[in-house]
Amino acid sequence: MALTQTLTQLEIQTQGKGFTRLNEPIETWLRSKDIEQGVLHLTCLHTSCSITINENADPRVLNDLAAWMEAVVPQDGKGPANAQGQRRRYQHDDEGDDDMPAHIRTALTSQTMTLSVQNARLLLGTWQAVYLWEHRQLGSTRRIACHLIGDKRATSTQASQTTATTTQTASNQTLLNLRNATRLNQQIQDRIHPEAWAEEGGNPTDVDLLIDRLHDISDP
Amino acid sequence: MALTQTLTQLEIQTQGKGFTRLNEPIETWLRSKDIEQGVLHLTCLHTSCSITINENADPRVLNDLAAWMEAVVPQDGKGPANAQGQRRRYQHDDEGDDDMPAHIRTALTSQTMTLSVQNARLLLGTWQAVYLWEHRQLGSTRRIACHLIGDKRATSTQASQTTATTTQTASNQTLLNLRNATRLNQQIQDRIHPEAWAEEGGNPTDVDLLIDRLHDISDP
Amino acid sequence: MALTQTLTQLEIQTQGKGFTRLNEPIETWLRSKDIEQGVLHLTCLHTSCSITINENADPRVLNDLAAWMEAVVPQDGKGPANAQGQRRRYQHDDEGDDDMPAHIRTALTSQTMTLSVQNARLLLGTWQAVYLWEHRQLGSTRRIACHLIGDKRATSTQASQTTATTTQTASNQTLLNLRNATRLNQQIQDRIHPEAWAEEGGNPTDVDLLIDRLHDISDP
Repeated sequence: MALTQTLTQLEIQTQGKGFTRLNEPIETWLRSKDIEQGVLHLTCLHTSCSITINENADPRVLNDLAAWMEAVVPQDGKGPANAQGQRRRYQHDDEGDDDMPAHIRTALTSQTMTLSVQNARLLLGTWQAVYLWEHRQLGSTRRIACHLIGDKRATSTQASQTTATTTQTASNQTLLNLRNATRLNQQIQDRIHPEAWAEEGGNPTDVDLLIDRLHDISDP
Repeated sequence: MALTQTLTQLEIQTQGKGFTRLNEPIETWLRSKDIEQGVLHLTCLHTSCSITINENADPRVLNDLAAWMEAVVPQDGKGPANAQGQRRRYQHDDEGDDDMPAHIRTALTSQTMTLSVQNARLLLGTWQAVYLWEHRQLGSTRRIACHLIGDKRATSTQASQTTATTTQTASNQTLLNLRNATRLNQQIQDRIHPEAWAEEGGNPTDVDLLIDRLHDISDP
Repeated sequence: MALTQTLTQLEIQTQGKGFTRLNEPIETWLRSKDIEQGVLHLTCLHTSCSITINENADPRVLNDLAAWMEAVVPQDGKGPANAQGQRRRYQHDDEGDDDMPAHIRTALTSQTMTLSVQNARLLLGTWQAVYLWEHRQLGSTRRIACHLIGDKRATSTQASQTTATTTQTASNQTLLNLRNATRLNQQIQDRIHPEAWAEEGGNPTDVDLLIDRLHDISDP
């Protein structure tokens, strides 16, 4: 089969500073493209938000990651302290105290990313999700270029890869057991809208995903 | 149309620590390749400079970004302060006090990057530019691998994308109005060589680009 | 020639926190694929280790880089100090004090990377190597997706690139002369197993690579 390409721009509405999962909108788009295997290039078309891959299960990972960034690149319009403990104001302050820190956070994280598509799905590790990381205080509509190069059918050399993926799925149970199940269950119980994960077009949260995974494992 | 590839190395002369715009040399090379749509892979072939995307208009953004990096990864040959406020000298110091910090800055930013090409041009956000970020004190000749995979003609599915791009360009005016026009105009007035932006082969500065954009908007 | 793709997952055994060279396993896999020119996409399938390119010769660069990261993202389960010098414990601590810092280090470095393949080899700068950077205290088996899109034969336009590569090799001697040869020779003399670099399947160290390069230069 011959390689083909297709390019689109996903529009993602962010809810202010924080992480928005991209897996679902990307997978939805992928399904419409009928590509069995390929590479997917993501480009964040903004300078105050970025793309990152991190933990998909425990939402406290993202909280801690955000808190680290807040401590190291605080959004009060001032740079790091010098040896005398003084902090200089940023020169670029026309767009608010959170703008220049957002540019710095963008430079420290990823602006473009390339992922593999295998069996018509994103090839990610067991605990990985792709996030748009909004660095501004207020949310806005963000555009991510999605450029897919791939084949409608996988080449024959990929048969062995399918096997490897099966093995990986089988070990999810073990990995999950290693985690603190009580605390995760507490998160699930604490959810405000327990049916939200099943709504078509709803914004899935990390807890939603975790529930999905638990369902997958218990009802294979 | 079938996908084809082409690979070259751009040589970029840096002027010491700071940012050198890559958009123009990349676009010049792109034009010579006659590729309508594709992906462009950039690899920085050095360990003391890197690639980043950031603000293309207000040069103070790059100043503040550089100042942040100077504070967090200072180039005096010593690492971060410990709890007692003491700073250990780097072991690797044969090549000068600015060398090891340059390696660290490189690791914190991007070493490879993939961008989309659409309508034979780089697909970037309104305020984005691609920069080679030189981390050494002195400039030198840097090489960036540019690897393009694309089609001479866009596939028919891309017609809708062209429309999206048009919409984006139309909103530049609005975005620009949100900025502090007086301060930007002051920057333009302060330029030492006001005709430099028009010189073939000259090094365009951020201010040059801004002037270009203002011309584009006022003379569509 | 038509572009084709192939995808595999490399399994890399890490030895705990630190750097594992990927050049050799990647090059071995590349040789089995018979691709003359193409792009290689690497995706780290984990959220507590990452991919980075850095210095391939002096091992003290990696030591200093690791020490910087240890100071800025320490692995004692606590975040950065606030203005009062107090450090908050991470919320996510089920998997050990080194886990949350590993997630942060991953976000600050690269999770995916695209490299060029030229003349059936990785196109890297003279002093570059690709590393898997393990951020957890203990080593484990890590998987890196390797996705290659390329041609069995280079296109004719690449003839000039081969020339450029030759020029680069010729200047290795000069670059090496600029370094502190005495200290590097000391490193070589200090090696515990001086024949290890020649063993098929052995883990080459940075010093091994340096010896290889010295051999290459002295016996062209």
